[in-house]
Amino acid sequence: MSKAITSKEKNYSDWYNDLVVEADMAEHSDVRGCMVIKPHGYAIWEKMQATLDKMFKDTGHVNAYFPLFIPKSYLSKEAAHVEGFAKECAVVTHYRLKNAEDGSGVVVDPEAKLEEELIVRPTSETIIWNTYKGWIQSYRDLPLLINQWANVVRWEMRTRLFLRTAEFLWQEGHTAHATREEAIEEAEKMLNVYAEFAEHFLAMPVIKGIKTASERFAGAEETYCIEALMQDGKALQAGTSHFLGQNFAKAFDVKFANKEGKLDFVWATSWGVSTRLMGALIMTHSDDKGLVLPPRLAPLQVVIVPIYKGEEELAKISERALEFKSALQKKGISVKYDDSDKQRSGWKFAEYELKGVPVRVAIGPRDFQNGTVEIARRDTLTKEVVSHEGLADRIEKMLEEIQQSLFDKAKSRLVASTRKADSYDAFKKMLDEDGGFILAHWDGTPETEERIKEETKATIRCIPLDQEKEDGKCMVSGKPSNGRVVFARAY
Amino acid sequence: MSKAITSKEKNYSDWYNDLVVEADMAEHSDVRGCMVIKPHGYAIWEKMQATLDKMFKDTGHVNAYFPLFIPKSYLSKEAAHVEGFAKECAVVTHYRLKNAEDGSGVVVDPEAKLEEELIVRPTSETIIWNTYKGWIQSYRDLPLLINQWANVVRWEMRTRLFLRTAEFLWQEGHTAHATREEAIEEAEKMLNVYAEFAEHFLAMPVIKGIKTASERFAGAEETYCIEALMQDGKALQAGTSHFLGQNFAKAFDVKFANKEGKLDFVWATSWGVSTRLMGALIMTHSDDKGLVLPPRLAPLQVVIVPIYKGEEELAKISERALEFKSALQKKGISVKYDDSDKQRSGWKFAEYELKGVPVRVAIGPRDFQNGTVEIARRDTLTKEVVSHEGLADRIEKMLEEIQQSLFDKAKSRLVASTRKADSYDAFKKMLDEDGGFILAHWDGTPETEERIKEETKATIRCIPLDQEKEDGKCMVSGKPSNGRVVFARAY
Repeated sequence: MSKAITSKEKNYSDWYNDLVVEADMAEHSDVRGCMVIKPHGYAIWEKMQATLDKMFKDTGHVNAYFPLFIPKSYLSKEAAHVEGFAKECAVVTHYRLKNAEDGSGVVVDPEAKLEEELIVRPTSETIIWNTYKGWIQSYRDLPLLINQWANVVRWEMRTRLFLRTAEFLWQEGHTAHATREEAIEEAEKMLNVYAEFAEHFLAMPVIKGIKTASERFAGAEETYCIEALMQDGKALQAGTSHFLGQNFAKAFDVKFANKEGKLDFVWATSWGVSTRLMGALIMTHSDDKGLVLPPRLAPLQVVIVPIYKGEEELAKISERALEFKSALQKKGISVKYDDSDKQRSGWKFAEYELKGVPVRVAIGPRDFQNGTVEIARRDTLTKEVVSHEGLADRIEKMLEEIQQSLFDKAKSRLVASTRKADSYDAFKKMLDEDGGFILAHWDGTPETEERIKEETKATIRCIPLDQEKEDGKCMVSGKPSNGRVVFARAY
Repeated sequence: MSKAITSKEKNYSDWYNDLVVEADMAEHSDVRGCMVIKPHGYAIWEKMQATLDKMFKDTGHVNAYFPLFIPKSYLSKEAAHVEGFAKECAVVTHYRLKNAEDGSGVVVDPEAKLEEELIVRPTSETIIWNTYKGWIQSYRDLPLLINQWANVVRWEMRTRLFLRTAEFLWQEGHTAHATREEAIEEAEKMLNVYAEFAEHFLAMPVIKGIKTASERFAGAEETYCIEALMQDGKALQAGTSHFLGQNFAKAFDVKFANKEGKLDFVWATSWGVSTRLMGALIMTHSDDKGLVLPPRLAPLQVVIVPIYKGEEELAKISERALEFKSALQKKGISVKYDDSDKQRSGWKFAEYELKGVPVRVAIGPRDFQNGTVEIARRDTLTKEVVSHEGLADRIEKMLEEIQQSLFDKAKSRLVASTRKADSYDAFKKMLDEDGGFILAHWDGTPETEERIKEETKATIRCIPLDQEKEDGKCMVSGKPSNGRVVFARAY
């Protein structure tokens, strides 16, 4: 196989980029900052979508779809929001092209200028709350629990496949509530949905917390987040859930009459995860041979490859292989029997390793005679020769083991990479030598936070929800603190 | 219930708009030509998506995602394509906003002008074939059978919810093949998938055919289509499948080496259906009381409504209702027990009629004593009182009957509304009096086609695939014709 992936040791960043492209996950397009999500990558995203969508529906949410374009003036209606989002964005100014007079192609028709420019949505709070105004009059209309699956655009200057792209795919939940308490409960509930999804499906342990004021979503009163740790010791924000207070209701004048007929502004949340999770998934488990996928998100969980000379051998092996395939399918396991003659078995082995198929079954003529097959586990790269008998049961169990084992391994790494620093020097040393999550005391001021960020490139990932009360002193200012926050360098 | 829908008789167009909004399907947004797809409408679209997606996968296709933006110059690469699509479209010219100096909000930053403007995709042939160039080298890479679910934008001047909007949701398949024959086979296969979906799920009979040269997709050698007939006698194009020849491969220089190592351009197809199908669905079956949905696409197939006075009665009824609910769910039927006390039962009856729930079950205290329930069919508006015994089986059968009955009714209407005209006068009279599909002889020239369109607003919907050979004379020019084509006024 000619596909070459830089080793993680040599260059983690090149390893990631090579892997994403070679494993058919995604590639850069000719359009600056926009990626093409290739079929294998998209198949994994579809599994993520289906799983999350079910979790959203099980918690009472429905889907809807709002316009791609946002009138420029909407962005200005919420003061904090405009500062955060009305900067780097794609602006539609015209609605028509015409043939160039010199015959060189098409040019923008200057006559077709929009009266008000349209922004390609960077997030949809404004257009959605402008719509909710028409949907909410009474407490009977609440809560409104709506999610949207959509593409959004933020004009990022430095892009990386999945992790930071100008256009990305995501879901954004936007809910409306009658009380502050109910909205906070919703924001916390969705954070827990995200954490459960990350740990149970991505096999990726996370820390749940709240953002500091300076890292909050533009327009939020509180931003909850889940933070994960990649293999190179850098953190990755994997999902956020915002309690928006009455900010957007006030900006778009959305009031409701309560049971007593009294008018009040509506309370809001929004929450989202994106194709960024694809990057998190890749960086949490994969190795130098390619992708390693947790079985619950693997589009293909098992591949069966025949090893044969000639049609006669293939026919015999195929008969048995198709029995295995059928037995696995009955268990709801997705399986492919690859008897294509376009490629050799060695090429296929490498290809399925690259693509992260959790279990590979190989059947050669000797296996066939002995009533055995060779099973290879993608995560550990171990092989064993086992009997035909009870094969489907064994593989079913193996898939569960792989799922658990990937989580355990990532969890051990997270635990080992989460350390306490009690001085700024120790903090900087830890950061430079190993990275990871560093628990340290901070005085709670944005000034200190900013200074640490400037001097070390580490940010406060979150104030953990399970923060232990512990009196201490800020490692920088020496001012009192009553609990440690989580620092890291981050993607 | 205060929601008022104009009657079909009075004004078909107002009826449609009222229904779409009141049944929570969609509404116009503040952004010109862009709609909001409301939760009930989106739930139906999700069922369409899931069904089509499975049909695509069962025929060997995979999904991927390509950029929202297309560099302006790409549109010019295929000569016919640019004429068709590079006109009314959303043009991104800038990538940044900044605060207005007078503090009035945000303005476009003139410094952030793109070197080359980006077009919001009206369709993705160009960006996809530009990408395929990197994916296709050898016959081993073919066929490439890829579909994309996406939003697209065409700056339509006159918009109608679902039927014609500036932004709409759709799927677009883009396939690459080694031979002309294989590509034609693919285009025809996908047309058949669309026809099966329309008839089997939307319960909407269609005529399969090919478009005339002037109605062809810009860049296609052949456009296949399915055409349906709405209740007002107007036609609606419900899906198209294009054989693109080597046009896009030539425009983007996509060649492959065949088994003998010889280079040739790749053959292509593309095919799509959109949220327009939502409009087709509504206009095919609905009535003055609201939506009528075929059970296979109804997000909610059965609703159970209790009629009671006081908690005690409700408790008794609920116990029995939840048994029915569970029995129906076991059959895979989606069912809701609506015991909400926010609204009265009369309000609920009207609401579920409006939303098109195929079967309504009502249980009152007398029913409870008699061991009966009242079942109401949404399509026929008939009611019957039936025994508790075997209720789930009866409802399951009723759902199948409704599905079939809706198709039969629509099919009868289509047959009755498809007539032959042998003179231009008769043709015009039919058009004005009843509309429908009119089969007439045409001389095969774009001039005559254009003249008929200008004089009568009728277009050639298609040359039917099952066209009977019949010698005749063009109703306008008198020139010879060897088969009738399908004319209609259309949406």
